[in-house]
Amino acid sequence: MKTTNPFDLVLFGATGDLAMSKLLPALYRRDRAGQLPADGRIIATARRALDRESFIARIDAAFEQYLEADERTAADWDRFVARLEFVSVDADTAAGFDDMAAVLRGREDHNRVFYLAVAPAYFVGICQTLNQHGLVTDRSRVVLEKPLGHDLESARAISEQIGAIFSEDAIYRIDHYLGKETVQNLIALRFGNMLFEPLWRREWVRDVQISVSEQLGVGGRADFYDRTGALRDMVQNHMLQLLCIIAMEPPTDIGADAVRDEKLKVLRALKRLEGQDVLRNTVRGQYRAGAIAGQPVQGYLEEEGVPADSRTETFVAMRTELQNWRWAGVPFYLRTGKRLQERGAEIVVNFRDVPHSIFGVTYGAGQPNRLVIQLQPDEGVKLHMMAKSPGDRMQLRPVALNLDFAEAFRQRPPDAYERLLMDVLRGRLTLFMRRDELYAAWSWIEPILEAWNDAGDAPKPYTAGTWGPAASSALLAREDATWHEER
Amino acid sequence: MKTTNPFDLVLFGATGDLAMSKLLPALYRRDRAGQLPADGRIIATARRALDRESFIARIDAAFEQYLEADERTAADWDRFVARLEFVSVDADTAAGFDDMAAVLRGREDHNRVFYLAVAPAYFVGICQTLNQHGLVTDRSRVVLEKPLGHDLESARAISEQIGAIFSEDAIYRIDHYLGKETVQNLIALRFGNMLFEPLWRREWVRDVQISVSEQLGVGGRADFYDRTGALRDMVQNHMLQLLCIIAMEPPTDIGADAVRDEKLKVLRALKRLEGQDVLRNTVRGQYRAGAIAGQPVQGYLEEEGVPADSRTETFVAMRTELQNWRWAGVPFYLRTGKRLQERGAEIVVNFRDVPHSIFGVTYGAGQPNRLVIQLQPDEGVKLHMMAKSPGDRMQLRPVALNLDFAEAFRQRPPDAYERLLMDVLRGRLTLFMRRDELYAAWSWIEPILEAWNDAGDAPKPYTAGTWGPAASSALLAREDATWHEER
Repeated sequence: MKTTNPFDLVLFGATGDLAMSKLLPALYRRDRAGQLPADGRIIATARRALDRESFIARIDAAFEQYLEADERTAADWDRFVARLEFVSVDADTAAGFDDMAAVLRGREDHNRVFYLAVAPAYFVGICQTLNQHGLVTDRSRVVLEKPLGHDLESARAISEQIGAIFSEDAIYRIDHYLGKETVQNLIALRFGNMLFEPLWRREWVRDVQISVSEQLGVGGRADFYDRTGALRDMVQNHMLQLLCIIAMEPPTDIGADAVRDEKLKVLRALKRLEGQDVLRNTVRGQYRAGAIAGQPVQGYLEEEGVPADSRTETFVAMRTELQNWRWAGVPFYLRTGKRLQERGAEIVVNFRDVPHSIFGVTYGAGQPNRLVIQLQPDEGVKLHMMAKSPGDRMQLRPVALNLDFAEAFRQRPPDAYERLLMDVLRGRLTLFMRRDELYAAWSWIEPILEAWNDAGDAPKPYTAGTWGPAASSALLAREDATWHEER
Repeated sequence: MKTTNPFDLVLFGATGDLAMSKLLPALYRRDRAGQLPADGRIIATARRALDRESFIARIDAAFEQYLEADERTAADWDRFVARLEFVSVDADTAAGFDDMAAVLRGREDHNRVFYLAVAPAYFVGICQTLNQHGLVTDRSRVVLEKPLGHDLESARAISEQIGAIFSEDAIYRIDHYLGKETVQNLIALRFGNMLFEPLWRREWVRDVQISVSEQLGVGGRADFYDRTGALRDMVQNHMLQLLCIIAMEPPTDIGADAVRDEKLKVLRALKRLEGQDVLRNTVRGQYRAGAIAGQPVQGYLEEEGVPADSRTETFVAMRTELQNWRWAGVPFYLRTGKRLQERGAEIVVNFRDVPHSIFGVTYGAGQPNRLVIQLQPDEGVKLHMMAKSPGDRMQLRPVALNLDFAEAFRQRPPDAYERLLMDVLRGRLTLFMRRDELYAAWSWIEPILEAWNDAGDAPKPYTAGTWGPAASSALLAREDATWHEER
């Protein structure tokens, strides 16, 4: 595969977790695969006063942890390290930006990427400082990680301030769920085959479930998390993005605008929940002390940094619908939470049952077809069907078909960040959120937050290590549905 | 699985090929599987004057050839042999029928099966002689192998004469293609899942191909074959039966009448070909000398017993349509022949291409989805799809999904005759042809034979070891289609 054009990738937060565990390993792997051009540099920055050698020693230690042993060869390491510069900068005081300017000078015709792997509070400041130092060229791009705002107003404020410096098509809002190989595979299955699209609609789909469960608690992020909650932290971004990929109409092409136009249409078709509708169609939960994998864990209110009277939800389950011809009336169930029984992220498309069984009761109970797109802990796509079991009678049995084909192709699927970083370097915006998508998502989320606030009650308690409050099951039971919890 | 009721199975033609290679091994295997009751006897008959021991020695030799070594245990063999009687009978003179009567006496309350594994010329005579000897009880069934007549009139004559002795629901007309595990599996896939049925129609299917190819020539059957031809020998029965299973509407249940009613509707919906339409939509061929698997073989006209001016077709390709709402306009292409390049039997459902590729030309050429149901030489069901190949671009590649699941279930699929014999013993008529189906098939075949006859020309020559005359490819090329010839 072709390399990209020459580039300078300026990585803010280069000593942080994301950079060490994901971004630098991803760049190393793509370098190894021969996809980075000879003249592609990585200018790592951090507030910490480090020299280049100390920084490289940190990477060395991180790679020991995050790469497979057989991925690390001396030649690959040497080539990768030769790309690295390190500059200490302070976004608050603008210290170090002159040094960065020196490193970048004379390379204005190269692609320039500013990757902001830092807390969102710094986004605007960094962009403004970059601009003041004349570092934002025509060929500059900026990459932002969530959260992009706390509500519609703050999201708008960030976008408009950054938008004053970078044009919309130079802004790469990352949602790493969209970079997952399996999400790409889902797009290929839906639109590369005639077999799925005719069935991908209200006539044949009973419900869609999107579920992201964590075993972790809030850990060291209590302060941030308590101001945020599960709805903002997971639903507003990752889960709505997945819903868009599942539900969108076939785009004209897989170019950025065609895909993002279709996703936007999905977000705008989300049935708006307000007032009593919110309370009827959502369940908030907050974990109490319990056990994860046999180990006792404390409740949310006991976590360090969480106010004893916090009403922040650590769990949310909800039912929504799309108001369009394709999906009208089909429930989309979303569920996410911390301290749940298992770690996992999956999309489940439950097809309707056959309208009538010609085989009769003695021939094995039929189960409706189900497509399970699993994103965590492992990636995979499975189609659950009924087949005849061999023998001289018509006995049906459920079987699961593997549709991810990774085995067939005998290749390691790339990590989401490998894919997304290469897209940034190549200038492909398809898998990044556009500003209007962000606004539409917040517009839909806000009335839910308001209704919860108006109701004034506390989230429902659930024991850590369970699947959340009973009300979450009851939400689906109302429609004779159940959460998919098999692995 | 339950055993059947006590039975006497009277096997005519017990020393013949079919009995030795298929029927007796099938009974042995079902016995081994514990499905035959203690009181289930096999009364083998043949014209030849043999004693029981000599007959058993013949079976022993045949089993050596047709069973796997690990299927043959002393205990199984002893139990099976204990079921066997042998009676010499002559259908022409009725000699031996008294002996048979003696063997059957006092067992009128048991199921009684007369399996006529003999030339069709003997069918009526045997049934009449059985009747004259008072051997046809209320619980008697008769099993007939093709050919059931030479045209509509002779088929009617046979059916009516046998129908005077056996009621219609005691007549089991075997088409062993219907007993194949894969055909059952196709029924399970179609009607046990929501996924296929909505796509199984003109909107989504481009064409259907049914192809049965033999490498063998006419061998010792020249006399019979020359009076018959490929259309009567293969299309009228096997291929139309497969077409029925593919094309039928969902039956109410898998009971005999519900399924056979639906098959009959398909046969009656076949677009009638007459006169010029026949010549335009069919291709007759006759093989010339050539080579099969590197060995030279002679042409049809040189085969012993074939008249030098024979116009009998050893190959036929045709295009037909069904005149109903589900299939109107969808071509059903049938092809069968002797001395073709490979031995195989398969049904191919070619789905339409995606209406528009969102991926563009640089992302790998899409191939339309295709379901291949293979019956010979091996059984299997494969779905050909497009999937994303792993990597950081949206590159599509074709993959084949295995839908027969035999591996998943880790069981040897039973031979067609195992299945069909058990159905006869259990009284299940679903997989056997009803009289009206037979008539409908002949009614559709006759005008084709007449048009060929009226045209008065010779079949198109093709070289043994090819896929038949070029006109066969041209028949499909007219509609931009091609025969599926990959393995």
